[in-house]
Amino acid sequence: MSAGALRTEPKRINTPATIGDRLWNDIVSTARFGAADKGGVTRLTLTDEDRQVRDWFVTECRALGCTVEVDGIGNIFATYAGEDMSLPAIAVGSHLDTQPQGGRFDGILGVLAGVEVLRTLKETATLLRHPLTVVNWTNEEGSRFSPAMMGSGAFAGALALDAAHALADREGVTVGTSLDAIGYRGETKVDPAAFAAYVELHIEQGPLLEASATEIGVVTGIQGLRWFDVVVTGTEAHAGSTPMAQRDDALVAAAEIVLAVRDIARENPPGVGTVGFVEVGPNSRNVVPGAVRLQIDMRHPSEAGLDRMEAALQDAVVKAGANAELTRIWSKAPVVFDPSIVDAVRTSVEALGYSATDVVSGAGHDAAHVATVIPTAMIFVPSKDGLSHNEAEYTSPEECARGAEVLFQTILELDRR
Amino acid sequence: MSAGALRTEPKRINTPATIGDRLWNDIVSTARFGAADKGGVTRLTLTDEDRQVRDWFVTECRALGCTVEVDGIGNIFATYAGEDMSLPAIAVGSHLDTQPQGGRFDGILGVLAGVEVLRTLKETATLLRHPLTVVNWTNEEGSRFSPAMMGSGAFAGALALDAAHALADREGVTVGTSLDAIGYRGETKVDPAAFAAYVELHIEQGPLLEASATEIGVVTGIQGLRWFDVVVTGTEAHAGSTPMAQRDDALVAAAEIVLAVRDIARENPPGVGTVGFVEVGPNSRNVVPGAVRLQIDMRHPSEAGLDRMEAALQDAVVKAGANAELTRIWSKAPVVFDPSIVDAVRTSVEALGYSATDVVSGAGHDAAHVATVIPTAMIFVPSKDGLSHNEAEYTSPEECARGAEVLFQTILELDRR
Repeated sequence: MSAGALRTEPKRINTPATIGDRLWNDIVSTARFGAADKGGVTRLTLTDEDRQVRDWFVTECRALGCTVEVDGIGNIFATYAGEDMSLPAIAVGSHLDTQPQGGRFDGILGVLAGVEVLRTLKETATLLRHPLTVVNWTNEEGSRFSPAMMGSGAFAGALALDAAHALADREGVTVGTSLDAIGYRGETKVDPAAFAAYVELHIEQGPLLEASATEIGVVTGIQGLRWFDVVVTGTEAHAGSTPMAQRDDALVAAAEIVLAVRDIARENPPGVGTVGFVEVGPNSRNVVPGAVRLQIDMRHPSEAGLDRMEAALQDAVVKAGANAELTRIWSKAPVVFDPSIVDAVRTSVEALGYSATDVVSGAGHDAAHVATVIPTAMIFVPSKDGLSHNEAEYTSPEECARGAEVLFQTILELDRR
Repeated sequence: MSAGALRTEPKRINTPATIGDRLWNDIVSTARFGAADKGGVTRLTLTDEDRQVRDWFVTECRALGCTVEVDGIGNIFATYAGEDMSLPAIAVGSHLDTQPQGGRFDGILGVLAGVEVLRTLKETATLLRHPLTVVNWTNEEGSRFSPAMMGSGAFAGALALDAAHALADREGVTVGTSLDAIGYRGETKVDPAAFAAYVELHIEQGPLLEASATEIGVVTGIQGLRWFDVVVTGTEAHAGSTPMAQRDDALVAAAEIVLAVRDIARENPPGVGTVGFVEVGPNSRNVVPGAVRLQIDMRHPSEAGLDRMEAALQDAVVKAGANAELTRIWSKAPVVFDPSIVDAVRTSVEALGYSATDVVSGAGHDAAHVATVIPTAMIFVPSKDGLSHNEAEYTSPEECARGAEVLFQTILELDRR
């Protein structure tokens, strides 16, 4: 690996210096499947571009000696044999689909690093005790078919397979039809009990690691999330002839709520709160706004934190105006990863001597579903400028290689247990 | 008049009790020209609906013995002879065009009250010393052709006639073509010097008179106005993975500006300040906004007040964020009406015994242009709930009649001078 020699028990593995370069090469070359204009990738789930990268992945894994299975939602499980096939497998992976005009790293890094681990095992003729499975989950992004994290959700039993097949995209094409069209509606029923652990390497999609010049994030969980809609109703009025004292300006009340959301998040660290969407009616310069809709996103690593934030938001909405109505439209409970798997990641980073910090993921990941059925943890590497879902998304070759090294070391650590 | 007997010198005039009813009847019946669904009127300037109401106005005035002249922009001047035709005329009027789904009173009241004064003069065989001209100005509203107050602007020389003719609506139809199509491109060049005074009766389009239970507003001028655009540039970021301390949220900065505009107006009474338009990019719930555009309207009766408000806005924008840019895109200087004409209105209201208060108009009116070339004042009557540019716009029969009485009394007062 270009970022440093892989440190493990010498008797078990012999690391070629080239695997960081190979990983980078895979990242660059698989970006041709759905290449976008500005260096990124548009590879929506279950499209022909997705089929191309899936075919590449299956071919690659089979060439390395893996058994490849596909389940009913199109998740691909490539399993490399271990010494003791009676042991449950160690699973790693992520997703190969992208957002429209998305990046080359989001999800992709976790799958390709798994392939690189397989290559290294084969080259060094290393047998782990456990089987090792590299997984590509279907439709993590959710931009073509909602909900996101569909494949891992179906795997974990959060989503019924029949219901998932019936979901349609904007053109009315269903998941089932799309799976058939690209030849990835599998027959295998994969049992979560067949796995001892799941580890997902992913880019941070946030600025923390870069800002603190930290090489690796040891991910201890995923923030919980609550989505709210606020409708503020004021009185539409003439901007010239309505004195300030007689106004009931919906936008002024909405502005107070926008600032309250910021303040509430600041007062509940490490929570975050965002008003990302605003719609003003009638939205005309010289009319006092009569109605404003806000969409709010609040996240916190603990349920108690989310409760505090929601209560404070309710207070703020009441304070902003009698005619503001708050509705919670969606929530996701926080995910706390399995301490023993998190510990395996931490031990591995320490063994490799990389700088590390515990982080809670702000974004959702397949690991959130998988964690409900398999002991799970995640590894983060930095994202330049915190950018993601964007063609400018970037993680350097060295950073990618370090992530793959930590993934490999964690597999070895788990394999010893 | 239904709202009380017209008080004037008995030797000169004998008021029938019916003219309030007749005025109301005209308001209701002319609303058939462009009747909208909810009781209002859609009568955009120079459309066939506008032609119908113009034809009605011309027919009515000719039947009363008026000479009718039309100028090159379609303004209609209906003149009732006075005893001394060498004296300049007293002019009254307003506009018969409306907003889309507009009301039955905005503009219309001022013209129809003028017609009612003519009827009363004729019925009572009264001759004023001065000629009396009732004017219908073309395109006050500006919703079909921009700018608004086009006819009065051309009359006052603020807009060249050729340039006005070339202006086109959204379908590319010009003012000139539209004037020809409805037969209202006149030949007469009407000289402002031919008028001694101009008085415009209008609904308030604001809530002040109703809120203070005041019958008449003596309008001393029209607020000045400045329009600003603000572009706030932040950094688009993931709502889940970007910590609060590392955000550059354009909407949070914009919310501070919205509240600052409210505060600045409150600190500069009787100024008003409105953010009526907001555009957020990318406007997605779980993306920290990277860009926000605001449109701001600020008004004040004095230039010095506008200057203070603009300076405070500049400070607020700087305070809100380094990447906020403020541009003043339009301004209109305050209009101060002629003290002697305002005094004639005040004297007339006092003679009639109606409650009155001095007000500064928040909205623009034809009187703003006319005031630059003829000594001018305005009379306001209440608007229910301050509503205007809305089918629900309402002023009661009694309120309309009081306005017409004050207009009549003011004409008599001016005629004595």
